[in-house]
Amino acid sequence: MSSNQARSSGSRTTGGSRVRTEGAKRAEILAAATDRFGRDGYEQTRWADIAGDVGVGPTALYHYFESKHHCLYVIIDQAIEDFRARFAAIATTEAEPEPALLAILGDCFDLSVRDIQRNRLLVAEQGLLSTPRASPREEQARQAARARTRDLEFAWAAFLSNAMQTGAIPANDPRLLTRAVLGLYNSIWHWYRPDGILSLDAVAEFYRGRILAMIGVPTATAPRPQTPAGAA
Amino acid sequence: MSSNQARSSGSRTTGGSRVRTEGAKRAEILAAATDRFGRDGYEQTRWADIAGDVGVGPTALYHYFESKHHCLYVIIDQAIEDFRARFAAIATTEAEPEPALLAILGDCFDLSVRDIQRNRLLVAEQGLLSTPRASPREEQARQAARARTRDLEFAWAAFLSNAMQTGAIPANDPRLLTRAVLGLYNSIWHWYRPDGILSLDAVAEFYRGRILAMIGVPTATAPRPQTPAGAA
Repeated sequence: MSSNQARSSGSRTTGGSRVRTEGAKRAEILAAATDRFGRDGYEQTRWADIAGDVGVGPTALYHYFESKHHCLYVIIDQAIEDFRARFAAIATTEAEPEPALLAILGDCFDLSVRDIQRNRLLVAEQGLLSTPRASPREEQARQAARARTRDLEFAWAAFLSNAMQTGAIPANDPRLLTRAVLGLYNSIWHWYRPDGILSLDAVAEFYRGRILAMIGVPTATAPRPQTPAGAA
Repeated sequence: MSSNQARSSGSRTTGGSRVRTEGAKRAEILAAATDRFGRDGYEQTRWADIAGDVGVGPTALYHYFESKHHCLYVIIDQAIEDFRARFAAIATTEAEPEPALLAILGDCFDLSVRDIQRNRLLVAEQGLLSTPRASPREEQARQAARARTRDLEFAWAAFLSNAMQTGAIPANDPRLLTRAVLGLYNSIWHWYRPDGILSLDAVAEFYRGRILAMIGVPTATAPRPQTPAGAA
C-alpha cells in the first residue's frame, strides 16, 4: 500500500523533491519486479529492466537487492506470508471448522490481477527455492522463504487436524492432506491467465468444490450435476 | 530400453570397439542428463558435466542437442509421451471406466527411481515450457513438448467425459477435472524424495484415494478412518 501511495503522489516530474523512505522504494521495486516476472517471465526479465521501471540505476538497486534471485526470494516470502496471515485471520475469527474452511477457500480466490501474477510466478519458479545459493545474502533470503512455506503448511495441518478431531472432516493424515490441498490450489496458477476465456469465478467455484470433495466434506462429495458437452 | 542395453553391453573398457547407433548415444545422453538434472538440479548442472558423463566432447554433444534447454525439452517430451502411451494402453484394454480409472491410478505410481527423478525435473522446470526460445532448434523442441502435454490432457479429458456419460463418475467439466487430476498428481513430485521417510506405496495409497474422492467416485468419497496423532 505505501509503495502505491508513494508512486501516485510522488510523481517523477517533480524531480525527486519528495523524500521516499527506503521501505517504500523497496516495496516499489518488489511491485515492479512482480509485474515484470509475471508478464515477461522470470528468466526473460533483465535486472536492468526493473531498475529502469523504478527509475534507479543498477548500483542503487543493488542497495536493496543483490540480484534477481534475491528479489524473487523476497517476493515469494511476502506472498506466502500474505497467504498465511489471511489464513490465520479467518481460522482464529471463525471457531467452527466447516464454516472456517469455506471462508478460507473463498478468500483464496479473492485475488487482484497482481495477486494472480504473483501466484503464477510463485509456482513457475518454486524449483529455485530448493537449490542452495553461494551468495550469503541470496541464501539467507532463500531460507527465509522456505521457512515461510513451512509455517503456512504447519498452520494448515494444525487446522485440518483440529477439524478431524472435532469430526468436521474425515480422519486422514493432516500433513499429506495439507500438501494435497496446497498442491491442487497451486496447480491452478500453472495454466490460469487473468485475460483467458475462463473467469476467475468459474475456476474458483470448480476448485472449491473439488478441494472440499478431496478433503471429504460431506456436502461436497457429490458434485452438482452439470451437462457436459455431448451428454444426453 | 535400447540405451540401457547399449550401456550395459558396450562397456567403455573395450575402447569404443562397439559401434553405437546415433539413437543409442542420444538415449544415453538423455539418461545421463535426467540423472544429473534430477540429482543436482537443472540450473546447477553444467552442460559440460553431461558431456563428461557419457564420454563425448562438447562439440560431439552439440551434434545431438544444441543446449541444456534443448535436451530438457526432449526429456519432458519423452516423459509425457510415456505417460500418454501407458494411459492409452490401459484405457483401450479396459472397457469399463471405473476399473480403467483404478488401473490408470495404479500405473501412475508404478515408478522406478529414474522415473521419479524425471517427474521431479518435469514439475520443477515446467515453467521453462511457457517461454519461447530464440533458437529455432530449441523452439521446435519446446513446441513439441507442449504439443505432447496437450495430447495427454486431451486423452484424459476424453476418458473422463466418457466416464461421465456412462454414469461411472459424476458429471462435471472434463477439461477442468483433467487439470485438477494432473495438477494434484504433479504436485507430489515437488516434495517427494525417493530416499525420504515416506514410502512411495504410502504416498500412492493416499493420493489414489484423494484423486478418486476429487473425481467423485462413490466408493472413494469417504476416506477410510485412520487415527491421526493426538486424536481420541
